[in-house]
Amino acid sequence: MSMPTGANTSVILRLELQKENASFGTIATAISESGGDIVAIDVVRTEKMTTVRDLTINVYDSKHTELIVSLIGKLPGVRVIHVSDQTFLLHLGGKIEMSTKYPIKNRDDLSRVYTPGVARVCTAIAEKPSLAHTLTIKRNTVAVVSDGSAVLGLGNIGPEAAMPVMEGKAMLFKQLGGVDAFPICLDTQDTEEIIRIVKAMAPTFGGINLEDISAPRCFEIEERLVQELDIPVFHDDQHGTAVVLLSGLLNAVKLVGKRLEHCKVVVCGLGAAGTACTKMLMAAGVANVVGVDRQGAIIRGGSYDNPAWQWFAEHTNPNKETGLLSDVIQDADIFIGVSGPGVLKPDDVKRMAKDPIVFAMANPTPEILPEEAEPYVRVMATGRSDYPNQINNVLCFPGMFRGVLDCRASRVTEGMKLAAARAIASVVSADELNEHYIIPSVFNQAVVERVREAVIEAAYEAGVARRARESARGTDRDQQREPSAALSH
Amino acid sequence: MSMPTGANTSVILRLELQKENASFGTIATAISESGGDIVAIDVVRTEKMTTVRDLTINVYDSKHTELIVSLIGKLPGVRVIHVSDQTFLLHLGGKIEMSTKYPIKNRDDLSRVYTPGVARVCTAIAEKPSLAHTLTIKRNTVAVVSDGSAVLGLGNIGPEAAMPVMEGKAMLFKQLGGVDAFPICLDTQDTEEIIRIVKAMAPTFGGINLEDISAPRCFEIEERLVQELDIPVFHDDQHGTAVVLLSGLLNAVKLVGKRLEHCKVVVCGLGAAGTACTKMLMAAGVANVVGVDRQGAIIRGGSYDNPAWQWFAEHTNPNKETGLLSDVIQDADIFIGVSGPGVLKPDDVKRMAKDPIVFAMANPTPEILPEEAEPYVRVMATGRSDYPNQINNVLCFPGMFRGVLDCRASRVTEGMKLAAARAIASVVSADELNEHYIIPSVFNQAVVERVREAVIEAAYEAGVARRARESARGTDRDQQREPSAALSH
Repeated sequence: MSMPTGANTSVILRLELQKENASFGTIATAISESGGDIVAIDVVRTEKMTTVRDLTINVYDSKHTELIVSLIGKLPGVRVIHVSDQTFLLHLGGKIEMSTKYPIKNRDDLSRVYTPGVARVCTAIAEKPSLAHTLTIKRNTVAVVSDGSAVLGLGNIGPEAAMPVMEGKAMLFKQLGGVDAFPICLDTQDTEEIIRIVKAMAPTFGGINLEDISAPRCFEIEERLVQELDIPVFHDDQHGTAVVLLSGLLNAVKLVGKRLEHCKVVVCGLGAAGTACTKMLMAAGVANVVGVDRQGAIIRGGSYDNPAWQWFAEHTNPNKETGLLSDVIQDADIFIGVSGPGVLKPDDVKRMAKDPIVFAMANPTPEILPEEAEPYVRVMATGRSDYPNQINNVLCFPGMFRGVLDCRASRVTEGMKLAAARAIASVVSADELNEHYIIPSVFNQAVVERVREAVIEAAYEAGVARRARESARGTDRDQQREPSAALSH
Repeated sequence: MSMPTGANTSVILRLELQKENASFGTIATAISESGGDIVAIDVVRTEKMTTVRDLTINVYDSKHTELIVSLIGKLPGVRVIHVSDQTFLLHLGGKIEMSTKYPIKNRDDLSRVYTPGVARVCTAIAEKPSLAHTLTIKRNTVAVVSDGSAVLGLGNIGPEAAMPVMEGKAMLFKQLGGVDAFPICLDTQDTEEIIRIVKAMAPTFGGINLEDISAPRCFEIEERLVQELDIPVFHDDQHGTAVVLLSGLLNAVKLVGKRLEHCKVVVCGLGAAGTACTKMLMAAGVANVVGVDRQGAIIRGGSYDNPAWQWFAEHTNPNKETGLLSDVIQDADIFIGVSGPGVLKPDDVKRMAKDPIVFAMANPTPEILPEEAEPYVRVMATGRSDYPNQINNVLCFPGMFRGVLDCRASRVTEGMKLAAARAIASVVSADELNEHYIIPSVFNQAVVERVREAVIEAAYEAGVARRARESARGTDRDQQREPSAALSH
């Protein structure tokens, strides 16, 4: 077997070798013959009878790793202590850290950042609490709060297991938006308790990003926190998805020459994201949305136990269409899927109106695979990075929170979300726009600033921005350069 | 008036100048004649009629600043918009930030630290929750939790105003101990609610540092959290103070040739710190402690409503001494003050036993000033940095938490606190030890490592360390270098 040239990941095997009978040559041969490429060897420790070594090996994938591990494990005098792969290595000790903005170099510094000097700053805030936005990390810090009840496609995996997602989110907040986000995973799934906890923690933060909290609790939690707190509360699974979806749709309808207001839209999957997407579409002017779940379409005027369905019964499906997805998809201009794998069939797409637009956002497997839809669809988007037109929340939350922090918004209004969606869409210029490019890449650096500006503008229009307009206009991520914010008298 | 050579701080004045009638020369003259030294001028903006400039001026102190501001404010066409001093400038936007440990450079990185790759890490933790200590920030992260009810000498200033102290603490945690500390200031002072909140937040953290929570709530909160959580909970105002106090006392009695067990100790001020110090002293072998508060000594066998006093009645004052501080101070070897300014008189010190040891730790003004005590006292310590022998919690908490995180301790035992105290004391060598050097400086770099090692050793002895001893032994602040911690199978 030849050396792997397409090896796309590396693993580290920690081996305990009996000095007496283990042969490193045999090990190296076994690895290279199975297609692995040893790129580093580190001696961890040597004892009387044994030696422990880390072997870094380039491999194709996890199956390949398993093969190598099983081969080596059978060699005499060799014990595989453990296997670490790149992904796990990147998570060791967590992915984010707390840093000081400057070092405490001497007693003078210490007396300014801590007792006794800090007392004057505390007193100033006690006298004028809004100074917390200027003189503490509240200025630039967002809590990423989850209860671990609806994490990715994994479901209710609990707070500890949700942390890697929240840390990843915090990385993106910082790298893309310059926002300091701190993940807090809560060991409770009680709605009232979560509301109380987030309210109690609010003094530390300038905004709250709710994440991966299951429906219907997420609705109540967000709604109450929005009402009861004076900092923005944003459930990203709902609104981030809705904003990015709308941004893609705005460009998709432009491309096919339709007006969004005239489109019939079928929304499949009526959880948190489905509801938020529908509200966003209606705020953008769509009149004819048909919501459909496993049991079929929600009918205008119907009566439902599930509060989300009841909302659909009161606000959508003006033509009282009935039946399953395969029925209501007839003549639809747009399909929005936030449900599960494979629920949309090629036959369904065939029966849509001319120039079908399909946003199949179930993760990791969409409602219909692009290759299945391809013969019938005009514009196709998914949640995946390995197909064109990825609907990814990362396009929204860094710029959204950068904006609300910079203008010190008290909440996120419908208008701010619409503005963010239009801003994201605007990054794709008219002459770039085509079926495979309706939405910018998550690495497109223009997105954050465009979203930020739009959000700030909309916040001032809505009257929810509390910072003097002049100060919010410029980017001031480096707050050290902005002495205007500190008032000592 | 000459140029200030002793100017020890600088301020920034933001001035609005009417172009028509303001004269910069007049301003500069006024400043220099009053002893200020202009070191920088920045034009902030220029409009049609006005210009706004920042003047950075070296000054002596805040009175000097006020003088300059009042002089300038009287000049024609000049308006002082505001004044920022160094301390306030250092607090702009907060003193800490969240950082990513490495950048997300491309789609591959993104797919490892976020979806879809992160799902494997989440699943691993869901299957084995203790992996959270390895694969998330729990490994190295401590919550600094306060309700803002007893902040410095300022009292109940609330959560927003407490933040600058907690941020300062987080800076010290990081700089001295490599610990990622995140401040959470809670908008509730309800004991049960604080307990519930901290329990709910615990999945994110490897330890909890309670801070500036008023007595008696702090006792209940700490006790319950210690019982109900499996990570260390440490109320620094109690135990940090007690550990550092004991470390100073160990060296003080060594210096005067007494044995701590034989000393009569008067503890003045029976709040959180006083109680914790007394418990620590008794754990270290002191038999004769007399606790005294404003109303006088707490008598063995007495009955008191205040639970802290009741504890003293049950455990201290074996000789049933009665009276005020001035009575029970008679023949005391050691005075420990955690009360208020000026409560110990020179006459009191005179009546102590030979070679009096006085730890007057009230902040900012001690129970007796060193210059007053000097003629009568043998060893004197305060909480202040401008006298020798500063009893400062900074000597304890960074090393204490570094230790508990490195050995993954489930709690802080009495033995671990004693070990920390001995470790701090040990930094002052026998030939360095003298009346003015019984305790190391907060900038002494040997302290953290010494405390860390002692805490880890004591944690293994007590059976509360949950990490394989081998792994905890070395310093591994750089977790990237420690692949042994990640197990993918």
